[in-house]
This record gives sequence, C-alpha cells and structure tokens, in this order.
Amino acid sequence: MPRRARTAGLHPPVQSITISAPMPQINDHYLKLKAGYLFPEIGRRVKAFADANPSAKVIRMGIGDVTEPLPPAVIDAMHRAVDEMARRETFRGYGPEQGYDFLREASATHDFKSRGADVSADEVFVSDGSKCDTGNILDVFGDDNTIAVTDPVYPVYVDTNVMAGHTGPANERGEYAKLVYIPTTAETNFTAEPPPSGRGQRVDLVYLCSPNNPTGTAMNRAQLAKWVEYAKANSAIIFFDAAYEAYISDPAIPHSIYEIPGARDVAIEFRSFSKLAGFTGVRCAYTVVPKSLTGTARDGAKVDVHRLWTRRHTTKFNGVSYITQRGAEAAYSDAGRAQVRKLVEFYMANARLIREGLIAMGWKVFGGLNAPYVWLKTPGNTTSWQFFDELLIKAHVVGTPGSGFGAAGEGYFRLSAFNSRENVTEALRRMKSKL
Amino acid sequence: MPRRARTAGLHPPVQSITISAPMPQINDHYLKLKAGYLFPEIGRRVKAFADANPSAKVIRMGIGDVTEPLPPAVIDAMHRAVDEMARRETFRGYGPEQGYDFLREASATHDFKSRGADVSADEVFVSDGSKCDTGNILDVFGDDNTIAVTDPVYPVYVDTNVMAGHTGPANERGEYAKLVYIPTTAETNFTAEPPPSGRGQRVDLVYLCSPNNPTGTAMNRAQLAKWVEYAKANSAIIFFDAAYEAYISDPAIPHSIYEIPGARDVAIEFRSFSKLAGFTGVRCAYTVVPKSLTGTARDGAKVDVHRLWTRRHTTKFNGVSYITQRGAEAAYSDAGRAQVRKLVEFYMANARLIREGLIAMGWKVFGGLNAPYVWLKTPGNTTSWQFFDELLIKAHVVGTPGSGFGAAGEGYFRLSAFNSRENVTEALRRMKSKL
Repeated sequence: MPRRARTAGLHPPVQSITISAPMPQINDHYLKLKAGYLFPEIGRRVKAFADANPSAKVIRMGIGDVTEPLPPAVIDAMHRAVDEMARRETFRGYGPEQGYDFLREASATHDFKSRGADVSADEVFVSDGSKCDTGNILDVFGDDNTIAVTDPVYPVYVDTNVMAGHTGPANERGEYAKLVYIPTTAETNFTAEPPPSGRGQRVDLVYLCSPNNPTGTAMNRAQLAKWVEYAKANSAIIFFDAAYEAYISDPAIPHSIYEIPGARDVAIEFRSFSKLAGFTGVRCAYTVVPKSLTGTARDGAKVDVHRLWTRRHTTKFNGVSYITQRGAEAAYSDAGRAQVRKLVEFYMANARLIREGLIAMGWKVFGGLNAPYVWLKTPGNTTSWQFFDELLIKAHVVGTPGSGFGAAGEGYFRLSAFNSRENVTEALRRMKSKL
Repeated sequence: MPRRARTAGLHPPVQSITISAPMPQINDHYLKLKAGYLFPEIGRRVKAFADANPSAKVIRMGIGDVTEPLPPAVIDAMHRAVDEMARRETFRGYGPEQGYDFLREASATHDFKSRGADVSADEVFVSDGSKCDTGNILDVFGDDNTIAVTDPVYPVYVDTNVMAGHTGPANERGEYAKLVYIPTTAETNFTAEPPPSGRGQRVDLVYLCSPNNPTGTAMNRAQLAKWVEYAKANSAIIFFDAAYEAYISDPAIPHSIYEIPGARDVAIEFRSFSKLAGFTGVRCAYTVVPKSLTGTARDGAKVDVHRLWTRRHTTKFNGVSYITQRGAEAAYSDAGRAQVRKLVEFYMANARLIREGLIAMGWKVFGGLNAPYVWLKTPGNTTSWQFFDELLIKAHVVGTPGSGFGAAGEGYFRLSAFNSRENVTEALRRMKSKL
C-alpha cells in the first residue's frame, strides 16, 4: 500500500478550495487569441484562387522564408559533425544547455567584439529559434509589467503576451487591452520613438525589431540611443530583435543595440541564423542576456536577469543539436562569412529590384534598403486586404496585408525579397502590366 | 512625430496602478527554486575528489546520458538530408511547426497502431525534447489546478511548476507547498498508486513516468488501468512520460498509456528519441495530445487541449531541424529498428550486469529489468549522500543520490546503465572489492 498522498507544507489541503467548474482548468487567456491568424487566412485565399484558376502560376512573396540552399561551409561542417556522431570516440550526448563554447565564443567575437560591443561568450544563450526566445523570455518576468509593442508588429510578440495573461481581450481593431501600442507612421519612416518624457505612457518592457519586420526600415544610431536613454531614465528593459541585422548595408546603422553605450544595462538582444545563413529549416538562434541587466523582485531587491534566464534555459530546454551548432559555427569561418555575404547580397539585389520597380510605377515604398522586406503604401487608398485580392487575382502574386501586423499597418503591404531572381522579375513585370 | 502611445481598450491606463517597487518586475516564483540542484552538487563533489586524487580513474554512472554512437541508418539519413539542404531544388526552409508528416506518420504507425493503440499522425507533435515538452505543457493549463508528482521524481516536473507559480515555497525537506507528493516505496516496487477513492487527495494533473526515472521500475497493465480509471472518475489528466519505453522487455508491460482503453480521454504522452536512438545530442522528441482530451474553461465550457497545444506549438515554437527529423524517421526503418534494438540490448545487458552484481553482493535492488536504471537500497542504512561519498572515495564510481529526486528517495541510490561494458565491469569489480 502506498502511503497516503500528502500535500507539502502548512497550507490547507487544496481540495478545501471551492471550484465552480470541473477541473482540470485550461489557460483561459488562450481563448482571447483572435482565431483568424494572418498566414492561415492568406493560405485560405490563395488556395481558393488556385483551385479556381489551376493554370495560374502564383508567385509567393508573402511569408519571409529563405529559398537558397545552405552555404557550402555550413554543409561541410554538418557532414563532419554527422560523422563524429557515428563514432564512439567522437560521439556527443547531452551538450551544455546554453550552447557549446565554440559557438558562443564565435558569436561574441564576430557579432559583438568586432563591432566594439561588449558581450562575452557566457552572455550568449544558443537556442533553436528567435520565435521561441522572444516568447520564452516572458517566463522570467512578472505578470504586472506594462508591455509595449510597435504597431505594426511581428505578431508573436503580441500573441505570447496574450497567452501569458498580460493583456485583456481584443477590441474590434484587434488591439488587446493593457498592451501599449506605439504606432509607427510614414512620417517617421516607420520607426518607433519612445513615449515623450513626462507626458507619455511609461513602459517596463518594450519590443523593438530593427531592421524591422514587417516594415523593412532600420533604426539609426541616434534613434537607438534615444531608446536606450529612455530605458535608463524609466527603468525599462528593451527586447531588441535583430534577426535581420545581416541585411544592413548602411554603415550608420548599428547591427547590435550593444553598440550604443549603456545598452548592456537595459537590453536583451535576439539573434538568429535563419535569415543570416538560411537556417529557417535547421533552427539555430541565440539570445544575449547581459550580466549587468537587473529586474526587481516584489521585495524591491534587484535580481540578475542572467541568473533567471540561465535557470529557465537549463530547466526547460536541453540545448541545440550538436550538428546544427557546428553548422552555425561554420557560418563564422572565413569561407562561411564570404558565402553568407553572397547569400545576403542575392536577396538584397531582389529587394532593390522590388523597391526600384515599385518606385518607377509611382508607388510609395519604405524599407528594402537594410532589410529583405519592402513595405508599400497600397495604391489608390485601397485597404490592405483589397490590395491583397487585387494583386492575387490580377497579377497572381501573393504578398502580406499590412493590417495583419496591426491596426497602423492598414493601407500598407509587405513584399518579401526571399525568392528567385526569376520570380521577382516576373512578379514585377506582371504588376507593371496588370495593375 | 509619432502619435502618442496608446493603451488599447477601455481599461484604465496601467500607470494608474500603484507599484511599490521599481519595475520591471521579475518572476518571483523563480526565487523559490532551491539553489543546490542535484547535478551541479554532484559535479562539485566529483571535481573536488578528482582534484585531490588526480590519478584516480573515476567511472561516471550518474547522469543518464547515452554513450554509443548513432545507428548507421540514422547517420545515412542525416547525411542525405544535409545534401538536400545544399541544393536549391531540394532545400527546405520553415517546416510545419508540428513536424513533417513523414515523421508524424511513422510515429503513429510504429509506436501506437502496431500495438493496437489509437493515435493518429495529427495528434503527434514533434519537438526538440521531452524536457521542453513536459515543462511547456503547463502553458495551456490554468494556474489553479491541483498537481501531483510521485516521490522520488524527475526534478523537471517539479521545478517547472515552481517557475509557473503553481506552488508555495519549499520546506526543509525540499517539498513545495501546494504540490501533492505521492510517495512510492519498496513495498509497492516503487510504483505509484492513485489516491484512494473518497479518502485521498483529489488531483487535476498528475505526472507518471514509466519506465521510471529514477527508480527503473515500470508499471504493468493493471497498474496503468487503475490510473486511467482514477483519471476518468476524477476528471484528472495524466502526463505520461514514456521516454524509456524502448527498454521494456517484459511483454506484460504496455509501451504506451494508450494501450489502456479510455486513456485517449485522459492522458497526454511524452516520447523521446534520446534514449531510444541515442539522440541526447541531436534533440528530437514528440508529444501526443489526443483530440478527445478536454479541459475546462472558467465558464465551465469544455475546451479541446489539442487545439490549445496546436496554438502554443505554432506560436512559440518553429519546428525541429529537417535533418534531425529525417534522422528520427530512419530509426523506424527496418534497418533502423534492428540497430536501435541492438543499442537497447547493449545498455540492458549493462543493466543486468549491475543488477545481478549488486544482488550477488547481498544488496537490495529495484529496476534494471525494463529500464536502464538500477535503484538500490544503500547498504547499512547510510544516507544517499553518505553512500555517494563512500562510493566515490572508495571505488571511484559516481552515481546519483536518491534523495536528490525527493524526500522518499532518501536511503536509495541510482546507477545508470549508459556506459561501456568495460566501465560497468570495472565499476562492479571495484564495488565488490572496496565496499
């Protein structure tokens, strides 16, 4: 016979609490999420069109997924790593949850130290994706912070806060109560500015994405410095998503927020190999949590966020495939860097073609200079979804409605440069002749 | 100028709430976690010993990590997949977050349908590890459920509940308030039984691990059926961790909880390629969430857990490496299954050696028949840590103190069969002659 199940501690047994509904209870916050997520709706409309027009050659410039193969240096490194896993002497089992030193060192050296940014290898936490990291980071923060996102915004920032119970329900514009939206507009080149000092909404945690998804614009040094200053003055923490930093061509634009003095005390940075080296199907990313970053416990004590994230990462995660990490490391080798540069240049030549093609058509465009996305004002004041349908039906080209990224994206549209040259050229030809 | 940041909805602006401490607030629940985690403490003691005794050849039988290389079929499949990633025509970018159909189908067919268990491919969610899954599953449940674990227990079940705020602080025995502990004992062969009907503690969510880590014992059909019956009668959900199912040799022991009629309505099952095919460093696992499983919303409505987990998985995760998934698929091929069987037999021969060696020494042992762990009663009523020190100092062998898995593990000790034959034989020789 087992001993009777016991409840630890001095608390009253849980069964004495009256629960109205039968258990187990689900996380009700999930029910606040809007069902019609952007990409499924795009998929539905494209499928309906393709079914009705089976001969139409649809060109997809919607989802931001790479199309070119992995760089040869990465391929070679992964083959070598697979071979190591085939021999007892070189086989690797569990690795360090935070990533192997060889990769953490390479990231610290090439992505930060080489740019004068002070990031050490043990502040780099290797993971399987920035999507995971930008969601998981919320685990180590409390539930009563004021959280700000830009509008338009990468939907994962919003949805993960809804799931965590940090918001109220959505209104008819799709905006969730309690979340602070910072609209970005054409007047500021779709770049977010901090709430004006003294008058604005004070925020605790703010998501910034630069180069931006979806608008394709990038923040310069002065703009980033303003945010760091705001964070310092207001004890805020910046979640800086730099997944597209490899696409920066303008030397005036920082690749890391840590190029701004003081950022180590106020920012967490998210990096990814997805768009850098074509790893969307391979899964490798990392997050930098500086040791100088602190949050506040309920008793007012300062607590190192690095310590909390280490605990989360080692308890709820078990590291990235050794083979993948060797592939990522190879992206930093001399050959790997040259190959990555070529990949990025290929996509950016697409971006330039799209940007210049649309400008030549008399359209108003943003982005496409330091990011693989072109953000365009829909012509003739059509809504984002009206333009989506028009582009699909007339030109058989798929893009992403700006309104899917937030209310301030209404009247805008995203085109991705991740495609073959042939498809980009053909899409532009059709847009010129059919729209 | 940006428009003024706005807070969505009709709620009062958040800055009107009075916060005593400066923000941002951290997740205070992390501060309840006991600092001295088991494996770091083992590492500390081993290092101190090794530093003081540099010539001692320490044999590590502590952490449950595989030692043998990946099966050749897996290696071949991963090489082929790497080559596919090298060519534009066969390159794969983002895959489905839930996993590729080829792998979900293979798992449903070989792990369930072949055993008469009704699990379909779209109930299989491929992930990068069971450690992640058993922690992440809590995301889709509410915070007021009564949660039960066995004692001793795999620490991740406990720690992730602490982090999620489902417990109070720990007492001096390391037990967290509000968590229900179900002690398992030698009298029941360290197998958990449901709380006695009517008298016991009713629970909403219960973690069962069979074959068990750390005790190495496995639940038979009748024992599992009792749990399914309990869950049905009490509207509970079972989190069934079957990470070690490949080590079952007794045909009377189910490999999946879904072999028990009715389990589809009350259980989520966690599976892993880690111990099956040596994937601890490659990272692939999956979780089965049956479509017939429901939880309850605050308004009393039944909600499909499958729908919630799909939303979580697609929003906070981005799928497993294509290369890894092809490797996992190969473990199901005819050649792969034969190779996996050989691997498992190799480790289980180690387990038998350990088990029989200790029995011959007159020790009391559990497990080691259907799991790669042997759980032994420490001789002479020493505590788990006293025995750890004695084993290390006298025989230069490292194991895991049972008390590290919970208060009911005191006086017990875990030895892992994941090792070379030579090390196992030598460790037994030393134990016989030195202890």
